[in-house]
Amino acid sequence: MAHLYTVIMAGGAGTRFWPASRHERPKQLLPLAGNGEEPLVTASVRRILPICPPDRVIVVTARHLVSAMREALPGLPAENFLCEPVARNTAPCIGWASATIRRRDPNALVMVLPADHFVADEAGFRDALLRAVEASKTTTIATIGITPTRAETGYGYIEKGEDSGAGVFGVRRFIEKPSFDRAEVFATSGRHLWNSGMFFFRVAEMDGLLRKHLPELSAGLDRMDRAAALGDEPAEIENVFPTLPSISIDHGVMEKADRVSVVPGSFGWSDIGSWQTSWELANKDSDGNAAPESAVLIDARGNLIRDLSEIGERRVVALVGVENLAVVVTDEAILVIPRSRAQDVKQVLAELKSKTR
Amino acid sequence: MAHLYTVIMAGGAGTRFWPASRHERPKQLLPLAGNGEEPLVTASVRRILPICPPDRVIVVTARHLVSAMREALPGLPAENFLCEPVARNTAPCIGWASATIRRRDPNALVMVLPADHFVADEAGFRDALLRAVEASKTTTIATIGITPTRAETGYGYIEKGEDSGAGVFGVRRFIEKPSFDRAEVFATSGRHLWNSGMFFFRVAEMDGLLRKHLPELSAGLDRMDRAAALGDEPAEIENVFPTLPSISIDHGVMEKADRVSVVPGSFGWSDIGSWQTSWELANKDSDGNAAPESAVLIDARGNLIRDLSEIGERRVVALVGVENLAVVVTDEAILVIPRSRAQDVKQVLAELKSKTR
Repeated sequence: MAHLYTVIMAGGAGTRFWPASRHERPKQLLPLAGNGEEPLVTASVRRILPICPPDRVIVVTARHLVSAMREALPGLPAENFLCEPVARNTAPCIGWASATIRRRDPNALVMVLPADHFVADEAGFRDALLRAVEASKTTTIATIGITPTRAETGYGYIEKGEDSGAGVFGVRRFIEKPSFDRAEVFATSGRHLWNSGMFFFRVAEMDGLLRKHLPELSAGLDRMDRAAALGDEPAEIENVFPTLPSISIDHGVMEKADRVSVVPGSFGWSDIGSWQTSWELANKDSDGNAAPESAVLIDARGNLIRDLSEIGERRVVALVGVENLAVVVTDEAILVIPRSRAQDVKQVLAELKSKTR
Repeated sequence: MAHLYTVIMAGGAGTRFWPASRHERPKQLLPLAGNGEEPLVTASVRRILPICPPDRVIVVTARHLVSAMREALPGLPAENFLCEPVARNTAPCIGWASATIRRRDPNALVMVLPADHFVADEAGFRDALLRAVEASKTTTIATIGITPTRAETGYGYIEKGEDSGAGVFGVRRFIEKPSFDRAEVFATSGRHLWNSGMFFFRVAEMDGLLRKHLPELSAGLDRMDRAAALGDEPAEIENVFPTLPSISIDHGVMEKADRVSVVPGSFGWSDIGSWQTSWELANKDSDGNAAPESAVLIDARGNLIRDLSEIGERRVVALVGVENLAVVVTDEAILVIPRSRAQDVKQVLAELKSKTR
């Protein structure tokens, strides 16, 4: 029997959640949904444990994040955390994780999931995962495509092909981030799905795909594999990883592979793109405030409060007579911004950069 | 020649500047005007140093505040800080300070000033002080009355009497906080002045006034005075002070005394009653923001930012697309409130109290 492994890609950085997100605490370590207490990566692992035991959950992350990751995921074995010395996009990440799993279990089935997404309907999500795992047994790579709920220009799209049964479809083509006009068409076509960044494959199949489509990457992975057999992996990772081509699994493999399949899913998915989305996904009181228990709210409606500072748990945040604000507190910075302008966080970062100069 | 002494009343508490103000850091220790760096008590002493040397400046404060006061006033001798074991309103405070000065200098002239007011025209202020000191040489008590600039219902008023020359007037009567209708009349009558809580007298005269109008207070002060002569003052203060009548110098003495005089003054005075007033008196950028240099302000207008937390100096406060807010940060709390609602800080305190219960 082929065992199912999960690879959680948890190496990402990001600036949209400034000031909460920073080099040592990127988005996946932040509690951006629900009650504001569970880090996204913790939720990402918790969600799949009913279908994959913790010793088969591999987390690929950056070295400076590994201790925070272990803290956020205390149930996973220490050896299941893979640390990239440098970030080289998703193909090296997935290739390395797949090769590592293959040494352990040559017949393994793998599902690769992002660490920083939100899912409302967790049972529905697992159902889609299992369909995609099933599909991966007979195709090169399977993926999940999210049924669009709006004309979104920020995602890539997948146009589904013929129906293979059991909720699985062929892929007609991959489409880069569209214009708004095209996105509007896609939103209601019934054929277009959002590319969710989830991948399902057999480790032997991935090995073959990489050899065919990314031979340079394969060669590097082989060097790391040989070193691992000699018990000398850490030093070789250090040497090899920075030389690997920085390319996504989408462009490098999936878009070139034959017989890719897609499982359409609609399970209340979000990639939580801003404080606005975080508020949408948060537990809120009857006035629409997403705030800690300790907050004092007087004539305040629709606000998001997050205090991630060292002393945040002992501090009261009081809002009086304000509406639809995001108030985010850390030891480095405090941000007060209307939720509707959450995208303008990048302006703050730009100004901070110019101030530092 | 009679020497001039200054008594700074710096024992007050207050809640209008929550969360910045608290038991250990009341309003007079906060930098509520100008560049947001000079505590009010520091400014209060700095302003009068051109007319009164630091060794003749006495600060009456509460015991738990004395070390913070010394820090805010490093130029004053340690023995010039008088610590009240309990607060008993202004008559015991002023009576004790006056008796203490009288032991040092029986001919002393005293001016009693609040620690937590703002003055825009400091030279004009000193001019008024010197007129009142001069007036105190021939009257029982002199005071300064502020020429009203609005129909204020929050202050007591003084109706001035006959002109004594040199900018000094008799007092026709003292008037309690008026209704708005009366305040509107007072604001333009040309005869009514705001009671500023400043008092000017000779120590011998004050001794006589207290014996006449507050004999119980006098008896207590005498006990403390005798103990001081025996080098045993601290213990006796501890015994006596809590037994002193809690009464203001206004009600207890000034309103009963004959020949009180008043010096009208208009030198840009404010008692800084709220965050709104603090913003009005603060240095502001061209967008009307009163904020630290480090702040990032994008489409932000008319805001007040004050970060009094331990790490406030190292933290960035960023406001995007918000107007006319007060954002106040301490280690205990964060307040976000429209300036126009600054009075509602008391609602926050009420809710905090009910939450604690």
